Amino acid sequence: MTIFSEGTAVSPLGEGRYRARLTEAFGFETKPGGPVVLNGGYLMAVLMRAAVAESAHAHPISTAVSFLRPGLPGPAEVVVESRKEGRTASMARASLMQNGEALLDALVTTGTLDPDAKPAYLGEPPAPMPAPEDCPPRGRERAKKGFPAHVDMRFDPAAMGWLDGSPTGRPEMRAHVRLEDGDEPDPYVLALAIDALIPVVANAGFPGWSPTVELTWHLRALPAPGWLTVHGTGRMVSEGWCDEDVEVWDAAGNLVAQSRQLARAARTRG
Amino acid sequence: MTIFSEGTAVSPLGEGRYRARLTEAFGFETKPGGPVVLNGGYLMAVLMRAAVAESAHAHPISTAVSFLRPGLPGPAEVVVESRKEGRTASMARASLMQNGEALLDALVTTGTLDPDAKPAYLGEPPAPMPAPEDCPPRGRERAKKGFPAHVDMRFDPAAMGWLDGSPTGRPEMRAHVRLEDGDEPDPYVLALAIDALIPVVANAGFPGWSPTVELTWHLRALPAPGWLTVHGTGRMVSEGWCDEDVEVWDAAGNLVAQSRQLARAARTRG
Repeated sequence: MTIFSEGTAVSPLGEGRYRARLTEAFGFETKPGGPVVLNGGYLMAVLMRAAVAESAHAHPISTAVSFLRPGLPGPAEVVVESRKEGRTASMARASLMQNGEALLDALVTTGTLDPDAKPAYLGEPPAPMPAPEDCPPRGRERAKKGFPAHVDMRFDPAAMGWLDGSPTGRPEMRAHVRLEDGDEPDPYVLALAIDALIPVVANAGFPGWSPTVELTWHLRALPAPGWLTVHGTGRMVSEGWCDEDVEVWDAAGNLVAQSRQLARAARTRG
Repeated sequence: MTIFSEGTAVSPLGEGRYRARLTEAFGFETKPGGPVVLNGGYLMAVLMRAAVAESAHAHPISTAVSFLRPGLPGPAEVVVESRKEGRTASMARASLMQNGEALLDALVTTGTLDPDAKPAYLGEPPAPMPAPEDCPPRGRERAKKGFPAHVDMRFDPAAMGWLDGSPTGRPEMRAHVRLEDGDEPDPYVLALAIDALIPVVANAGFPGWSPTVELTWHLRALPAPGWLTVHGTGRMVSEGWCDEDVEVWDAAGNLVAQSRQLARAARTRG
């Protein structure tokens, strides 16, 4: 069992309740040696496992999440309430709880996707980016634990100049992503990947942490094995609110997931 | 009192419950003389009025909705459950109920926006489109009641060739929108406008009705008086699932709202 599959596993307690144990493996130290705060995509993956376990359908097609409180390593519970059972899609409300408080509230639509589906892609092609071996694994040489140690991210160097004071001026960030432990992409790995990027506003002069307030993402196709490529963009920052869109493409060149989040950002450009 | 303000009004029943009366003024006949099904954006507006009434904040910043069942004219109730009260943002779960069943389940984040905010717009400019007087008010001459009679929509003729068998080939649709009754734009009128377009996939060869399954939208700024301009685009159709993004711009040229929805579409191109 991999760290990710074990760290997102849920066991049924009956009546739509599921027990989970959140692992620090997908967390970040808030300061060296300080408390570990867990990645939002990881928390979504735990919640989605319970929502799908409670459904007659196989896949989480759409997941909308309010992020109420940060999640900490340790015991947690997911509460799932079925709201509609349908032939094509079912809907549920789900909450990830810890110490009696909701960390995440979610609306989850489940359905069953065909692995051999032939999507009609109607949009512009994604921005080209270098292969993973040509993208530096920033910070990984120092990471012995937590998210950077377990999630292999290779950032597009063309959008990383902000590190040296040369942001591109546009809200953008791109990376190849895979799990260190060998998990191949599935809808739960996609949940992690879709919220893994450094905030895109770092490239538009708004530095610092950007906590997610709301994130909605749609599973558009079942992903192929191999690297995932995530493309992040944004449109506007106003009164400390910023939007961020992420598309995830799989190694076969298919658009597999789309998200938009609303997050908090610095109020003024740094 | 206008038809819209009366048709979206809610009165408190205590303990987070609100009474509403859904009006056929924002509905469509499913067939001539047949049952009236209400517009999803209108239903969102009713739900959001109750969510904001229950909050210490003034504006619905983010609203994520699962559309479970169609809404019909007549009595309805909104149930709001506060989940977090914050200085910058508060979160609630809300449901619009009719005859004991949930029509819409929602996650609503409220906050308070500054009407004098100066947004940093970082994206590409919106596609240019003709002024309202140069966009034909399609179908309005025949509409004596329901949504087309109460919502003045002027479609960009460049994206309306699909009506005569000449779709643009891209998922796109654009229109100017205002309420017939004189209501100036506010967050509730934006909820209506953001789900008012003809499905964008009509321009990509997927005809027919496209029921919304999930829609999330963010209020990015308080809108100026005058026409709203809505720009709809999409990326992919697969297994009958399609995405649609809508941006709403106000008469002062500001991006005021962003949405994405996942909807059902025809499985094959017509």
